[in-house]
Amino acid sequence: MAKTKAAKTKAPKPHALNIPVPPRAKLEPDTQAYFAKCDEKLGFVPNVLLSYSFDAKKLRGFTEMYNELMLAPSGLSKLEREMIAVVVSSINHCYYCLTAHGAAVRALSGDPKLGEQMVMNYRVADLSPKMRAALDFAAKLTEMPDKIVEADRAALRKAGWSDRDIWDIAATASFFNMSNRMAAAIEMLPNDEYHAQSR
Amino acid sequence: MAKTKAAKTKAPKPHALNIPVPPRAKLEPDTQAYFAKCDEKLGFVPNVLLSYSFDAKKLRGFTEMYNELMLAPSGLSKLEREMIAVVVSSINHCYYCLTAHGAAVRALSGDPKLGEQMVMNYRVADLSPKMRAALDFAAKLTEMPDKIVEADRAALRKAGWSDRDIWDIAATASFFNMSNRMAAAIEMLPNDEYHAQSR
Amino acid sequence: MAKTKAAKTKAPKPHALNIPVPPRAKLEPDTQAYFAKCDEKLGFVPNVLLSYSFDAKKLRGFTEMYNELMLAPSGLSKLEREMIAVVVSSINHCYYCLTAHGAAVRALSGDPKLGEQMVMNYRVADLSPKMRAALDFAAKLTEMPDKIVEADRAALRKAGWSDRDIWDIAATASFFNMSNRMAAAIEMLPNDEYHAQSR
Amino acid sequence: MAKTKAAKTKAPKPHALNIPVPPRAKLEPDTQAYFAKCDEKLGFVPNVLLSYSFDAKKLRGFTEMYNELMLAPSGLSKLEREMIAVVVSSINHCYYCLTAHGAAVRALSGDPKLGEQMVMNYRVADLSPKMRAALDFAAKLTEMPDKIVEADRAALRKAGWSDRDIWDIAATASFFNMSNRMAAAIEMLPNDEYHAQSR
Amino acid sequence: MAKTKAAKTKAPKPHALNIPVPPRAKLEPDTQAYFAKCDEKLGFVPNVLLSYSFDAKKLRGFTEMYNELMLAPSGLSKLEREMIAVVVSSINHCYYCLTAHGAAVRALSGDPKLGEQMVMNYRVADLSPKMRAALDFAAKLTEMPDKIVEADRAALRKAGWSDRDIWDIAATASFFNMSNRMAAAIEMLPNDEYHAQSR
Amino acid sequence: MAKTKAAKTKAPKPHALNIPVPPRAKLEPDTQAYFAKCDEKLGFVPNVLLSYSFDAKKLRGFTEMYNELMLAPSGLSKLEREMIAVVVSSINHCYYCLTAHGAAVRALSGDPKLGEQMVMNYRVADLSPKMRAALDFAAKLTEMPDKIVEADRAALRKAGWSDRDIWDIAATASFFNMSNRMAAAIEMLPNDEYHAQSR
Repeated sequence: MAKTKAAKTKAPKPHALNIPVPPRAKLEPDTQAYFAKCDEKLGFVPNVLLSYSFDAKKLRGFTEMYNELMLAPSGLSKLEREMIAVVVSSINHCYYCLTAHGAAVRALSGDPKLGEQMVMNYRVADLSPKMRAALDFAAKLTEMPDKIVEADRAALRKAGWSDRDIWDIAATASFFNMSNRMAAAIEMLPNDEYHAQSR
Repeated sequence: MAKTKAAKTKAPKPHALNIPVPPRAKLEPDTQAYFAKCDEKLGFVPNVLLSYSFDAKKLRGFTEMYNELMLAPSGLSKLEREMIAVVVSSINHCYYCLTAHGAAVRALSGDPKLGEQMVMNYRVADLSPKMRAALDFAAKLTEMPDKIVEADRAALRKAGWSDRDIWDIAATASFFNMSNRMAAAIEMLPNDEYHAQSR
Repeated sequence: MAKTKAAKTKAPKPHALNIPVPPRAKLEPDTQAYFAKCDEKLGFVPNVLLSYSFDAKKLRGFTEMYNELMLAPSGLSKLEREMIAVVVSSINHCYYCLTAHGAAVRALSGDPKLGEQMVMNYRVADLSPKMRAALDFAAKLTEMPDKIVEADRAALRKAGWSDRDIWDIAATASFFNMSNRMAAAIEMLPNDEYHAQSR
Repeated sequence: MAKTKAAKTKAPKPHALNIPVPPRAKLEPDTQAYFAKCDEKLGFVPNVLLSYSFDAKKLRGFTEMYNELMLAPSGLSKLEREMIAVVVSSINHCYYCLTAHGAAVRALSGDPKLGEQMVMNYRVADLSPKMRAALDFAAKLTEMPDKIVEADRAALRKAGWSDRDIWDIAATASFFNMSNRMAAAIEMLPNDEYHAQSR
Repeated sequence: MAKTKAAKTKAPKPHALNIPVPPRAKLEPDTQAYFAKCDEKLGFVPNVLLSYSFDAKKLRGFTEMYNELMLAPSGLSKLEREMIAVVVSSINHCYYCLTAHGAAVRALSGDPKLGEQMVMNYRVADLSPKMRAALDFAAKLTEMPDKIVEADRAALRKAGWSDRDIWDIAATASFFNMSNRMAAAIEMLPNDEYHAQSR
Repeated sequence: MAKTKAAKTKAPKPHALNIPVPPRAKLEPDTQAYFAKCDEKLGFVPNVLLSYSFDAKKLRGFTEMYNELMLAPSGLSKLEREMIAVVVSSINHCYYCLTAHGAAVRALSGDPKLGEQMVMNYRVADLSPKMRAALDFAAKLTEMPDKIVEADRAALRKAGWSDRDIWDIAATASFFNMSNRMAAAIEMLPNDEYHAQSR
């Protein structure tokens, strides 16, 4: 069934630029394998990967940084990193990232409401002071990066985060400020499958 | 002489977090080789690389994406990509990137004034309409990514950029919105050597 | 079953102020009847109504204005009015209104994706130029009401809206700028039932 | 004399939309009575009422909510509510509401300077800490409703306001965020009579 | 009578800093003469002059620039310059300048309503396209000086202003961006006499 | 040699308006003397002075206020005043003032890096708490003059500034909010000589 899905998801344009997505068979073997794994695990290849697939190096650069950031061992759980991703994307009103990572928050937390709160306004959520401090930092870093000062880092430490954690909070919030803008610039559209997931 | 320099640049903290830079000898062989090349070419290892060097995978992820973006063949010259980097960093008031990439604009253009104009306000520079359109797009993408619409892409096409060029303009502007925030979050400080370069 | 639901929804606090929701039996007869109708039609009484129920006059003032605005005959369909409500609430990041009226857009349109697009960023949606003009006006009226000028009204007329329609667009966008702020000020929380509706 | 005035005020268009004000004689009896009372008490019918008079239900919805808000018993005096109205309208630069409610502050306080200070910048006024806290809350709720958090409500309580008062502060500030936008959207113009009142 | 007035106006502190206003008799002869002329013409010495009077050079620097700007021959009438002053001060919410220059607009135009419109929102006023272009330029120069480009100057020329007029529009708008901030920084308070003038 | 330089600097247009710079020989004797002194001391006449030289009174008004502000005895050193000038100009992205006063910070401090930090983002500089307080005040006064309150002045006093110093901090920050806008409005361009100075 995954195959059928994949076949369908290849069809619609994943973004607004005239840069065609290459046919699967023309992709490099490791990309083909990666996409097959997506089909198997998710039932589709995320449009962000299809978008980058016109250039193997750019695709690899993006996925390596992304996977290291979101999946590697960290003082932040995967859910916590996804929550940061969604809060940044909420400020930037990024349709692609809110859809894909909102679904991830719902799936990882098992709490559909939490996903909606991150999409809409994280300030209403019932969070630990530690997690709220992380999201407040991510929000300030998104809205006024020039005004981050030592007191902002001190607030994170006081809330219980280590300096190594602060790196990961910063790196996650920064990455989605990139991704949000890339998605906006080329009007990257999320796969329809996300919408109904984990509701 | 490069050695002496390198020895010195290892000493000062490249950022405000308590994540020590590992001694050169402890780095992975390919990182050691990369840093030796920096010493040779630039006379120092840029602090951004020292900052990431605590984790080989994160360093590789960053440099691969960066090199692909700024150095790979593109419809935009290296200078044009550096100009976008500086314009984005000017809006975000990023000390690290304005210093390092301002120097790059001065070096690549042979025009110190152009570097200063990108740092201070690109609107005063005497640019081709095509390049101005790229910088206007980068500025809007930085300030209000949620308001990018098809008309903004159309303006780039009308100015002479191809859809493939638009990808590169978008990717460059987006990347520095990440880098600016990472530098702000950890207060990454540029190597002093940049300031006097190409004046 | 509706009864059981209603019993449950009375329990949790609908907002953060210490203004208790009166027991059903103490409400005025017409309010009791109104709430019974909510139970029957929706399966619950919306928290906004519970919030206002401490004062019969305030509740009546709110519901009369609301019903006239959203349900009375108009040149705008009910869906179009709900879309305006959600776009305004997206700019103001109002958790209550995005949840309740996002569900309404999904229900009225039969298109869950459209609801998500209104919540996240209406600019990505595939809309008629006429509807887009209405949403652009609502967004500007929300973000910078002091800068609305005759040209903004002219753009609506050119897109096909009558002056009477413009009143309704304006009234809807204005009303949710009130409601969003009331919900924020008292941290009004939406009923959990909305989240899973019409997905 | 009131009659003569009323006759004149009916003539000029109260706003920029092509939605004619019905002749007095065609209005519903209770509206006619209401307007007669305005003539008697104020010497004219406020243009906001003329604007809504094309639809009896909309007029009633507006006036009931307005009267309940501004005239009903409350922990806030009428003057305090008018001060909130003007501070919100100052941020939104609403000509109609600044004119009409600025006059109300002058009249209720007997202090023309206080009215001007609310119109221009409430921060220069010599106010009690309690009233200043209310205006600070109203200003934040107007400018960034998404950033209101429990600490903002706590500040009001600490300044001496009860939770029931907070409702009224919130409701007043929220209502004028609606009214300001409605006035801007249709360019509603205040009656000339206000300008010279209580100077 | 002027004397009595002057005696009174010396008494209250004209601003919030602890920099006392010197007694009249201690001022330099030309300042004494200047203040006597103010008493005679206005009935009082404006607080801005009292504020600067602690230092004869600063007072002279301010008044010379001010008088040259607002009173010297120009392609703009005195009223037009005062209108620019008030529009800039409205954006900056400057209580001092709105009070003093709002009164000047009322006096010079003989139209109290025009004064109020400049204070509240110049966009509602019934102005010539030429004057509106000047005020639009002043507003943009106040809000986002970094985004002024040649097209903005071209719009002024198209509206009928000469390059020499553009200088005066720019100089007036710029000056009040200084004055507004000086007044805010030291909380300079306008003389009470302005409020009732020319109503 | 100064002569040759001066001859050259007269040639290019110092700004974008069609208001020609009069030939040196036609200027008033004291202006000629002043410009000769510039030639001697700086090697050129700053373009801001050339720009104003079409009108002797405006030139004198500007230079008297400027010299009093930046050169007269004060509780702030000349370097501290230049730092404020650059921080304000950084927020306003003023190419002229960043270039000319950035050079002044480099020259007066003997620290090229300090000049760059003021141009790019003063928050990264290693400053005394006293000086940082002054720059924080200047930044707030530039960005939101309407929100300056007594607590802001209190913070300056607590940091060690006297009320008389606060006047000078305020006057300097305010003046450059004027100058930045005048330079933006007429696109005043700095002399090329500044760029290489004190690097």
